[in-house]
Parts: sequence; structure tokens; C-alpha cells
Amino acid sequence: MSTIHETEIRVRYQDADGMGIVHHSKYLVFFEEARVAMTRDAGYPYRQMEEDGLFFAVAKITCQYIAPARFEDLLRVKTTIKMLGLAKIEHLYELYRGEELLAKGEAKLAAVDRDGKPRMIPDFFIKRYLNPSIE
Amino acid sequence: MSTIHETEIRVRYQDADGMGIVHHSKYLVFFEEARVAMTRDAGYPYRQMEEDGLFFAVAKITCQYIAPARFEDLLRVKTTIKMLGLAKIEHLYELYRGEELLAKGEAKLAAVDRDGKPRMIPDFFIKRYLNPSIE
Amino acid sequence: MSTIHETEIRVRYQDADGMGIVHHSKYLVFFEEARVAMTRDAGYPYRQMEEDGLFFAVAKITCQYIAPARFEDLLRVKTTIKMLGLAKIEHLYELYRGEELLAKGEAKLAAVDRDGKPRMIPDFFIKRYLNPSIE
Amino acid sequence: MSTIHETEIRVRYQDADGMGIVHHSKYLVFFEEARVAMTRDAGYPYRQMEEDGLFFAVAKITCQYIAPARFEDLLRVKTTIKMLGLAKIEHLYELYRGEELLAKGEAKLAAVDRDGKPRMIPDFFIKRYLNPSIE
Repeated sequence: MSTIHETEIRVRYQDADGMGIVHHSKYLVFFEEARVAMTRDAGYPYRQMEEDGLFFAVAKITCQYIAPARFEDLLRVKTTIKMLGLAKIEHLYELYRGEELLAKGEAKLAAVDRDGKPRMIPDFFIKRYLNPSIE
Repeated sequence: MSTIHETEIRVRYQDADGMGIVHHSKYLVFFEEARVAMTRDAGYPYRQMEEDGLFFAVAKITCQYIAPARFEDLLRVKTTIKMLGLAKIEHLYELYRGEELLAKGEAKLAAVDRDGKPRMIPDFFIKRYLNPSIE
Repeated sequence: MSTIHETEIRVRYQDADGMGIVHHSKYLVFFEEARVAMTRDAGYPYRQMEEDGLFFAVAKITCQYIAPARFEDLLRVKTTIKMLGLAKIEHLYELYRGEELLAKGEAKLAAVDRDGKPRMIPDFFIKRYLNPSIE
Repeated sequence: MSTIHETEIRVRYQDADGMGIVHHSKYLVFFEEARVAMTRDAGYPYRQMEEDGLFFAVAKITCQYIAPARFEDLLRVKTTIKMLGLAKIEHLYELYRGEELLAKGEAKLAAVDRDGKPRMIPDFFIKRYLNPSIE
């Protein structure tokens, strides 16, 4: 599976911590923004999805920190779909500043309903997600 | 009106920003924690309240920053009820580290339902809120 | 004084709170992003400024909440310089979604050095800030 | 190695996201609070440590989400030292609400100086950290 998506993220002043670098928890927020943008670009915005009663709960996350991101950096997240199941998605994330790789992450997401119970990912979404250019 | 409530708050590492001091937006989070604790101590926790369909929306906030709070500080918020109406509450907040006053704030809150429409504050809550010691 | 600046801000998923709307403390983060962008566009990025030992500490903030911002909204902050002194700046902020005014804010900022002591705002910055188009 | 430390954490209103449950990035903030409390209880507060030029940079983090934490929950983090090297620490974290396990995490931390260069962990700190009861 090789669908790849890229998103730009501007680091906010408030993303940095007392060490003057982006707080390590914020990388998870950036990865989330990347998958939200990916879904929006696939024609099914998260907000619409949530109104339809489909949510993605994070089941597991991993992040490896290679070099610090800083305030005002314009970052780029490259998201790859590693696995796409009936009610599960796995993503790989790479966070770049220019050509420099700052972090690598991985997320396992479970499709759930409003009460947190497993839910099938709609077929039309899977098709668009894997091939955003189709109508 | 003079009901006063005090809450202790431990500054988290992530509350500080790149200047090494608590980010100014976090003072609003501290004030919120103070009113949440005040409500809990009045015997009607926010979570219960929200399950009952009662929410408090912030209509206006003011904060004056006097001296910076720092990471690991154990702070104290003194909350005073300035006004309590049928569907409105106004609070004054004073944030202290020991005897040093770090900030002063003021919030106007509107009682609303799940859709953001005005809602009466229940009578029993007003009584408990003004006098937490009554049963 | 009438210099006006506009900045676009995309609401992050994590900016919303348990009520499903943007947490009221995040508006202060949006106003901050607006002034940071304003400074960057005036040719003197905050990061450079902080490396030069010039910081802006928030002395007072006010925010009036008119209508809720939601996740994935693309917002626009209109910043007006209300006052510009030797070591002080006052801003007015208006937060819009399309043509709808969501919030109005005001910030008093004090120019300080690394130790929080008052510092003069450099003359060249004042000129550029008031007229970003000059070289 | 079996030194274990426990810390209580009160979930703030602002820790929850639009799904009404604690945002997954906040678990990393809770783990951080646990190690900060552990260090404080070992007699060498983070703030003192940072003034001495010793910082802990997160090199890798993993978190497995088992059940959601909610607003106002009083949580407990159980931290175990998995590895303690000359310039590295590895922790295991377990997050509980009462007896219910909500999440499990793991962090690899690197001791660095102000410029992010590797630094030896002081001997006296290792001793206290492994045995907080010694003088």
C-alpha cells in the first residue's frame, strides 16, 4: 500500500516548551493534523465524518525524535498508509523541516461509533482515501 | 456577595512556553480549574452538570498579568463570586504563589444548554454554590 | 493609528474541548499567532527578535466571545495597532469565520529583555511595523 | 531494576477534546508530570536540574491506549525505571483510574546539556533516584 499525503504545518509560539523547542507531545498533534488534512483532501472531512457518527480512536502511537522543531518553523508531514482494514487504519508519519527529517511516527487507529464501539469504515471512504483523485 | 473558594494548582512542565514561564493563555485554564473545583466542592460536579445538559460558556474574560508563574510552582487561585444571576455568573480570580499575587482575572459565564441556548441555573445549585456547607 | 494586518489560522482538532467547540483559552493563542505573523511580515521575525534579547510580555488581555469557532474552521484574525509606545504595544483583534465576527480581543504588551526588565522597542522595528511596505 | 513511583494527576477540563475524552497527546503530558514528580521526590527538582544545565530530551515514546480517561478523573501514574545508563533513562508508565488500567507507555530519555549535547547523569542523582529514601 503506498498512498502518500503531504501537509504543511506552521509551529505556533505556544507549541514550544520551557526548553525553547517544540514540546514532544505536540508531534502527536501535528500527526493528527496531517491525517485530518488527508481525510479532508479525500473529500470526507473529519467534521462531516463525526456528524455521521464515525470517529477514529488512537489505539497505539509511537514517535521517534531525531532533531528538535522550533517556533515559527514551517514543517511538512508525509503520511503513508501502512494498513487499511475494515475498522482499522495504520499510518506512518515523517516530519520534515525542508529536507531534514525531524521525527518519525506510527499510529494505529480504530474506527468507532459515538460510544467507542468498533464500526466498519465506509467503502466509499476507503476508495477515496486510497485514491483521492477518483470522483 | 462574598462566597470565596480556594484551589491549589500545580504548574505542569507543558504549561511553560519558550520564554520559560507559564504561557499567558494557561492562566485561563487555571481559572477554569478553579471554578470546576468550586462546583465540585459545592456538590454538583461539572461532569454531572454536563450530563444534565447544563454548560457554562465563557462570554468575556479579562486577565492582568503581574508577575510570571514558573514550572513546578504550586499556585493558589482565590475565586470570588461577583454576580450570580438566573443564567449568568461573574467571577473574580486572584492567582497566588505563596503570598505573592501573580495575576488577577475576571470571567463572565453564561449558562447554556447543549445547543448553546440560554438556560436557567437550577435553584438548588445556586443555594449550594453560595453556601457549600449547607446540606 | 491604523495599521491593520490579517492572518489566516486553521483550527486544529486539539483546539476544541469537551463541548466540541474551540476552548476559550485558544483564542489567546490565535491572537498571538496573528501578532507573530504581523511581526514576521514586517521583516523582523519573533525568533530573530528573541535571539536579539527582545521579548513581548503580555501585561493584560481581554476577550469577548460572540460565537463559537469549531474544529477545521479556517479563521481570519484582523489585528489593529491601537497604541505604540517606546516599550509598549496595544493591539485590537477581531476573529472572523468568513464574514462572521466570532470574537474581539485586546492585548497590552510590554517590551522586555531576557530578565523581564523593560526595554525600548528598536526604532527600525517601529517604522517597519507601522509601514510594512517600506524597505 | 525495580524502583517504582506513583503520582496522582487530576484531569483538567482543557485536557479533553471534541470527543469528550482526554486527547491522546495529553497522556504524554501526564507521563512527563509523573517523571517530574519522581525527580522532585528524589530531592532534585527538574527546575534545579535545568538551572544546573541538565535536561532530559525525549528520544522515543510509545503509548498504548486501553480505555479513555475523562474530564475530572483523578488518575494515578505508576512509573518504573526500566533502564538507567550514564546518559539515558528508560521508563515504563501505567496510567490507572482506580484499579482500571487506562494506558501503558514507555519513554527513552537522553540527558543533554543546554545545547542538546549528551551529558552524564550526576552520580548523586542516580543514587537518590534509585533509592529516594537514602539521605
